[in-house]
Amino acid sequence: MNTTTIPKEEFYDRIARFQANIRGSGIDACLVHATESDMANVRYLSEYWPVFESGAVFVPSVGEPVLLVGPESDIYGAQRSVLRNIEKMIEYRESAEPECPGMKFATFKDIISKYAPGGKVRKLGIVGWAITTLPVYMSLKEQLPDVELIKADQTLLPLRFVKSENELDCMRKAYQISELAIEAILNEIKPGMTEYQVVGIAQREIYKHGGEYEGHSLYVFCGASTNNAISRPTHNKIIKNEVIQLNIGARVSGYSSSVGLPFSIGPLPERKKKLIEFGLEAHFKTIELMAAGKQAGGVVKDYEDWVKSKGNEKYMLYGPCHSIGMMEVEQPWMESTSDYLLRENMTYQVDTFFYDHDFGLRWENGVIVKKGGVEKLSSKYMKIVEI
Amino acid sequence: MNTTTIPKEEFYDRIARFQANIRGSGIDACLVHATESDMANVRYLSEYWPVFESGAVFVPSVGEPVLLVGPESDIYGAQRSVLRNIEKMIEYRESAEPECPGMKFATFKDIISKYAPGGKVRKLGIVGWAITTLPVYMSLKEQLPDVELIKADQTLLPLRFVKSENELDCMRKAYQISELAIEAILNEIKPGMTEYQVVGIAQREIYKHGGEYEGHSLYVFCGASTNNAISRPTHNKIIKNEVIQLNIGARVSGYSSSVGLPFSIGPLPERKKKLIEFGLEAHFKTIELMAAGKQAGGVVKDYEDWVKSKGNEKYMLYGPCHSIGMMEVEQPWMESTSDYLLRENMTYQVDTFFYDHDFGLRWENGVIVKKGGVEKLSSKYMKIVEI
Repeated sequence: MNTTTIPKEEFYDRIARFQANIRGSGIDACLVHATESDMANVRYLSEYWPVFESGAVFVPSVGEPVLLVGPESDIYGAQRSVLRNIEKMIEYRESAEPECPGMKFATFKDIISKYAPGGKVRKLGIVGWAITTLPVYMSLKEQLPDVELIKADQTLLPLRFVKSENELDCMRKAYQISELAIEAILNEIKPGMTEYQVVGIAQREIYKHGGEYEGHSLYVFCGASTNNAISRPTHNKIIKNEVIQLNIGARVSGYSSSVGLPFSIGPLPERKKKLIEFGLEAHFKTIELMAAGKQAGGVVKDYEDWVKSKGNEKYMLYGPCHSIGMMEVEQPWMESTSDYLLRENMTYQVDTFFYDHDFGLRWENGVIVKKGGVEKLSSKYMKIVEI
Repeated sequence: MNTTTIPKEEFYDRIARFQANIRGSGIDACLVHATESDMANVRYLSEYWPVFESGAVFVPSVGEPVLLVGPESDIYGAQRSVLRNIEKMIEYRESAEPECPGMKFATFKDIISKYAPGGKVRKLGIVGWAITTLPVYMSLKEQLPDVELIKADQTLLPLRFVKSENELDCMRKAYQISELAIEAILNEIKPGMTEYQVVGIAQREIYKHGGEYEGHSLYVFCGASTNNAISRPTHNKIIKNEVIQLNIGARVSGYSSSVGLPFSIGPLPERKKKLIEFGLEAHFKTIELMAAGKQAGGVVKDYEDWVKSKGNEKYMLYGPCHSIGMMEVEQPWMESTSDYLLRENMTYQVDTFFYDHDFGLRWENGVIVKKGGVEKLSSKYMKIVEI
């Protein structure tokens, strides 16, 4: 049974480092946002993970942060969060917008008077800009007309790039669970099952082995829809001699994993088999190119050049890696425009997707960047499977 | 095996009725938003359900609507959506904000030139205002400085209040699956299991019986945390002689269900047992008060007066019902301030929550409003369970 967790002290250390960045940016405080499906930044600072409602953490440049929850989450917030200060705000209610007659709420003005240094803020950083909603923005503009609002993701996100030993342990466990879920699927899958029923096998295994949730919406596709870069399973039935694509991710203490492979029940036509084999070769090639000190964009260019040298660029949609951590896809991306250097203990999802008009395939495994190479977070299913 | 679905024609009928509302509001077009965890309005119009990325539907007052997807979802969108027009926009990318070098995107200006009547919009309604994000808002302000942006949820949401026969069939099936999942839990739960492991039993059953996903984040709590109005399960272990709370919801073709009951393994202390029994009585009382033609706020007041008459208002957090449909919690709410009348085929979650300092309980079942009363969507677990 896994109960791998992040200790309280690590949360407080994160907050201290975040506050140093806030001060270094000349910002007076940050407002950090989370939704049900995108909780990473708030959970990173507080362990809080909203459900039904959304939530935030207000972090002043000095002093104690405060968790901001919706109308129904104060008891949950107090029980779950590592933060002592909790305030209830109407802006973080459910999207069905209850009026909550008789309830009392704090305003952004109250939060600043109570928690900002000297009760004042001139520049307020917004972290999680991409998921910040209009009700929050409109209240900020109305209640704090003189405060400058600044997109401030870069004061927090880089702290999440290099993982701590505790974070790596959570991720190692999450990848182990994903491999166990895939093992169960390969043992139990039968022609005639629906894609959803195969998802059910994975869900059962994730929770049985100590996962707290799926690490991402699970992929089980059979046939033509394997050429969707992004998709959802359906009632479509598993059939023989077709590409079946799995991408199975468990979540442990907030940390995601994903293991992906294409396989088949019975042999595949030669054309499909060949592209799957090429995909696996490209997957290994990416891993070979990675090591601490390498430039991220350089890895992408070397990978793309290699794919071109094999004449397969027409099957390629995009780059070979993205970071993984609390979100299955998080910053920094590895794109041809990425000029940063890989650092030890950054964690990447090696994500090798190729597609044709009538099928596609995606090999996915996690790696930890190390000196001279990588540590594989998963490797059991880096192989051609035909059952 | 359930494959209950909404036929294409019903989507087109929804769009036509929505466009009539748009015209009636003096708006030129609406932009309707969805996220991974809050997809209802977009799915209602298109069947599209974003994953990793977000998405939208642009609906002009006359003419064809267009689905707006993120950088990786065009093939998925084309395969899943009932809409023929699809455009790719950077504003709907993942929150990890890939740069997507080399990809081409439409702008909001392009969308209006191409799809709005006469290529022009003066007033643009925003539906899903509460989940509309800053990247979308900032692009709209920058690209369309002369367009008036209006919160326009009320042009679409009321269409979702009264359910069609197809919608009711999806919901009936979703509630059946929830009851099957609870049956499996009651058969298999043992002291020493974690709350997560019990969630795994429910997940297995949901997908086995034709569910496409959970209808909401599943609740399995044992002991003190049952007093959280909103919460998430943990590694906490199931023990004897304690309140165990289940709220299990399956999703069928987009439609949610939830069945909730408190129960125990072995007898409970008298104080806890009494409040659970009172909760069940209050649950039946709510159902008794509901019928087509009743004023929603009146039902709430009658319910609250009844709870007060029993001396139990100190255990009550909030009102007895909320609507259920594509979201487990959706509009209209039933609050003391709700002055609308209940109509036939509105669907409510009767949600009876009471809490004390060290425990809580929540009875939940679904009903369809009918003349003279309700049709119960679930009723198998409207009873005291001790195993």
